Amino acid sequence: MMLEPRIGLPLAPREVDALLARTAVVLDWVGTLAFALSGGMLGVRKGFDLFGVLFLSFVVSVAGGMMRDVLIGATPPAAMREIHYFAISMSAGVITFYWAQQIALWQRPILLVDAIGLALFAVVGAQKAVVYGIHPAMAALMGMLTGIGGGMVRDVLARDTPFVLRSDLYAVAALAGGVVVAIGHAIHGPPTLYTLLGAAVCLFLRLMAIYRGWRAPLPRATRDQTP
Amino acid sequence: MMLEPRIGLPLAPREVDALLARTAVVLDWVGTLAFALSGGMLGVRKGFDLFGVLFLSFVVSVAGGMMRDVLIGATPPAAMREIHYFAISMSAGVITFYWAQQIALWQRPILLVDAIGLALFAVVGAQKAVVYGIHPAMAALMGMLTGIGGGMVRDVLARDTPFVLRSDLYAVAALAGGVVVAIGHAIHGPPTLYTLLGAAVCLFLRLMAIYRGWRAPLPRATRDQTP
Amino acid sequence: MMLEPRIGLPLAPREVDALLARTAVVLDWVGTLAFALSGGMLGVRKGFDLFGVLFLSFVVSVAGGMMRDVLIGATPPAAMREIHYFAISMSAGVITFYWAQQIALWQRPILLVDAIGLALFAVVGAQKAVVYGIHPAMAALMGMLTGIGGGMVRDVLARDTPFVLRSDLYAVAALAGGVVVAIGHAIHGPPTLYTLLGAAVCLFLRLMAIYRGWRAPLPRATRDQTP
Repeated sequence: MMLEPRIGLPLAPREVDALLARTAVVLDWVGTLAFALSGGMLGVRKGFDLFGVLFLSFVVSVAGGMMRDVLIGATPPAAMREIHYFAISMSAGVITFYWAQQIALWQRPILLVDAIGLALFAVVGAQKAVVYGIHPAMAALMGMLTGIGGGMVRDVLARDTPFVLRSDLYAVAALAGGVVVAIGHAIHGPPTLYTLLGAAVCLFLRLMAIYRGWRAPLPRATRDQTP
Repeated sequence: MMLEPRIGLPLAPREVDALLARTAVVLDWVGTLAFALSGGMLGVRKGFDLFGVLFLSFVVSVAGGMMRDVLIGATPPAAMREIHYFAISMSAGVITFYWAQQIALWQRPILLVDAIGLALFAVVGAQKAVVYGIHPAMAALMGMLTGIGGGMVRDVLARDTPFVLRSDLYAVAALAGGVVVAIGHAIHGPPTLYTLLGAAVCLFLRLMAIYRGWRAPLPRATRDQTP
Repeated sequence: MMLEPRIGLPLAPREVDALLARTAVVLDWVGTLAFALSGGMLGVRKGFDLFGVLFLSFVVSVAGGMMRDVLIGATPPAAMREIHYFAISMSAGVITFYWAQQIALWQRPILLVDAIGLALFAVVGAQKAVVYGIHPAMAALMGMLTGIGGGMVRDVLARDTPFVLRSDLYAVAALAGGVVVAIGHAIHGPPTLYTLLGAAVCLFLRLMAIYRGWRAPLPRATRDQTP
């Protein structure tokens, strides 16, 4: 309710919307940067060469959105038509490559920036899917895919078990953000409100996983075997 | 020949077609359910959490059809526009998660249901491809992809060697079903006939692999090395 | 400059273009054949059955172009509409399967043919992307994807670390070829010239990697750890 732009804010609605749109673009860039850094770090750790590091930076920051756009029929994907995703991820890749050891000291801040990126990608992805007429339940999944797709491809290429499948409410948080957006759209809520709310829910779950160790339930069979 | 609907059946052709269409929908659901159970079972065995199990259930049941639809240009894919694939796979995922140990006792029935799912997905996939104007040879491959795509993605995500590449006439059976449909379409045969025939051929090959150990030939180099 | 078709050649421009177009088709087939052989060889080495070997042959020769076509919106992909990719890769797969040991003796020639295939796929891929209105920087990446996509999918399916990520200027060479085409298109150069120049650059880099051991730089952290 406090986020509703039409009540109690010192700015006119149109100004608020413009401000939020600009904020969303900036956050989109921050998210792209965070994901690119996370991809680059993995490349360095695996001993890939400069090219491999740049490649992973790019893939992690755009693969989720690309898969979403292909699946909802929005081709060519946004990352193919706009150049800023490419520019940001290349910069992040070069930075990771040459300052890998310093960046490794910033694990915690990167985790936070990554959580913000996840939250934003999840709500932006779900919003784009509903705009393209996708069923709300699938739109929520598309939000999740936008958030986790890059990390999934990264893990498959680097031969890790996709970490979105095992841990830390990562995909669950992204899905929760997408669900809020899908419901908000279905009940004709104000986009600004449900988008911010979805991002907040996703961010909250992810931070609880990082700081409080929240987890999704494990299957009983597994619990029995691993005491 | 016995399957030809226009001769020797007590129903009028239109009634037969309507009956078969309804049967196909039911079998499509059965196939989706079987594939979702197979995905969920793997997730439980690998120790994934509730979310990971649901995720694998969904991916295994829809990935093949999604890849086909993207490749033949039928976007957004059917699984994005209809909700029943999602509903069935989520139900199967929850069931697998909470009753994993009981389901493990039903290995053989699941294998049979999975074979039925494979047969149906293969012929439905090939049929959809020819309807979209794809070359018959590629339509047969699209039938195969519809049948095996989910299992391939499952194995890549769970870091197994894709089992469709090594064993049990799995992909070969799906391909055979697709080939029958592609040929049937090319010679302007009655769709009901060649679809059922394709499914029967696929099912037969798969059952022979399960019960009689039929295999595709191995390369000579491998046979020499592993006596 | 020597490649510029309009000056100093004994043939009229149109004849040169027609000759080059025919040459490009032949080289495209050679590239498809080389990639199919490389996929089939891996299948034999991993002990896959006949079907698995054919499957890898096909995937390696078409996956890169299919991913490019889906991303630039050229669906259905060329390999779905034309049958010759399928025919060539199946032939290569059968040959690999039955003559695997003889082919293993030809490692060096196959590496050369593969380099030619890479060069051609890179420039053809980038060219197709610019024709579809993709931003030049992304078109260069699409050239790279066309060249390396098949190998990436092959390595993921066979559970190797994608070798394009670690070695031998493979992806870098493809990218360089794509960059030449993208720049050539951006400055409105003659297509014949920049296409041939791009292929030459890619081929040169790849041959230097094979014969002189040229490499992309490794990250400092890795260099410190592995002396």
